[in-house]
Amino acid sequence: VRPEYIIGIDVGVSGAICRLDIHRLTVEFFDMPVGRFATSTGGTYRRVDDEQLKALIRKLSGPDTVVYVLEYQQAFGLISKATTFKLADCFGLLRGLIISTNRPLETVKPVEWKKAYHLIKSEGMTQREVKEMSRQTALQLFPSAYELLKRKQDHNRAESLLIAEFGRRHSLRKYIPSYQPFREKSNQDQSILEPIADIC
Amino acid sequence: VRPEYIIGIDVGVSGAICRLDIHRLTVEFFDMPVGRFATSTGGTYRRVDDEQLKALIRKLSGPDTVVYVLEYQQAFGLISKATTFKLADCFGLLRGLIISTNRPLETVKPVEWKKAYHLIKSEGMTQREVKEMSRQTALQLFPSAYELLKRKQDHNRAESLLIAEFGRRHSLRKYIPSYQPFREKSNQDQSILEPIADIC
Repeated sequence: VRPEYIIGIDVGVSGAICRLDIHRLTVEFFDMPVGRFATSTGGTYRRVDDEQLKALIRKLSGPDTVVYVLEYQQAFGLISKATTFKLADCFGLLRGLIISTNRPLETVKPVEWKKAYHLIKSEGMTQREVKEMSRQTALQLFPSAYELLKRKQDHNRAESLLIAEFGRRHSLRKYIPSYQPFREKSNQDQSILEPIADIC
Repeated sequence: VRPEYIIGIDVGVSGAICRLDIHRLTVEFFDMPVGRFATSTGGTYRRVDDEQLKALIRKLSGPDTVVYVLEYQQAFGLISKATTFKLADCFGLLRGLIISTNRPLETVKPVEWKKAYHLIKSEGMTQREVKEMSRQTALQLFPSAYELLKRKQDHNRAESLLIAEFGRRHSLRKYIPSYQPFREKSNQDQSILEPIADIC
């Protein structure tokens, strides 16, 4: 089987999964499968649907998938305890599902992949503005993905793509030693074949 | 294959896994596999070892295992954000690994199983005293497990056993309609064959 895909995941209930073709550099997105579940007090809440996510990960874990790249999560100060819980739960669930398919898994810290794209938060920038910056970078690198990233709320998809692309550039040779992330210039999607430093 | 086991899990880095034989009512314990991992600042920290836990769950997920019972986790006020993170991460990881083996999984809220054993925290009781109460209850119900539960720090094992036993009493008939949790009185381990209300 020819290795074809690297999968980047933006972890979280509003997260996204990006499948990046490592040869053609085309992308597909899968939004995190989320369901409404009953609370004990009669209300409902949104959380990741374990079984649906399992089915999705199985579907994506063929031998043509080289490696999964997840954004590493840790407890940090800015978010609430409830959000911390959901994020960690989703991170654990994804790792459990992925390693069960025997596909390799890499994690990358947010600061690491963001630095590689020069995505540095300036003083006074809101969280929303930072996310918009990610989306703009993804659009610059993958103009052919415009239709899939054109809405402001596509920032999670954009981040999953940037994570997949970071893995393609930095981790793929661990699995495919002959792989050249920046091979030749083609006419379409020229930008993505250049090192990031030339673009940003 | 004859259904033999129900597995109760006390979730967490210091958690434990109990395999309870549903016919002979004998128990085995597996401590949560934990490793030391490097931090970015040169130190180390303890966390669940994903791959070792995967191997353990696979080993326990034969067709003779009827169902897994996990204590349901949620974000709550008493613990730190870092602890919340670790707990949720472990909860997610376990669910991901277990559902990947296609074995059924039930969750039970702490308040639910504790109520069934009359484990009610009194005013002024420390967390340590509450845990010791769990261990004493497990020893009362399963005197034959004394050797495995005799140390004060075996409270996590004790809780995993109480969770498995709660599942045996309350969830097993969903999977084996003919199963009688309180069949006949035998001479050894008599206490565990009686409804809990008679003992506590």
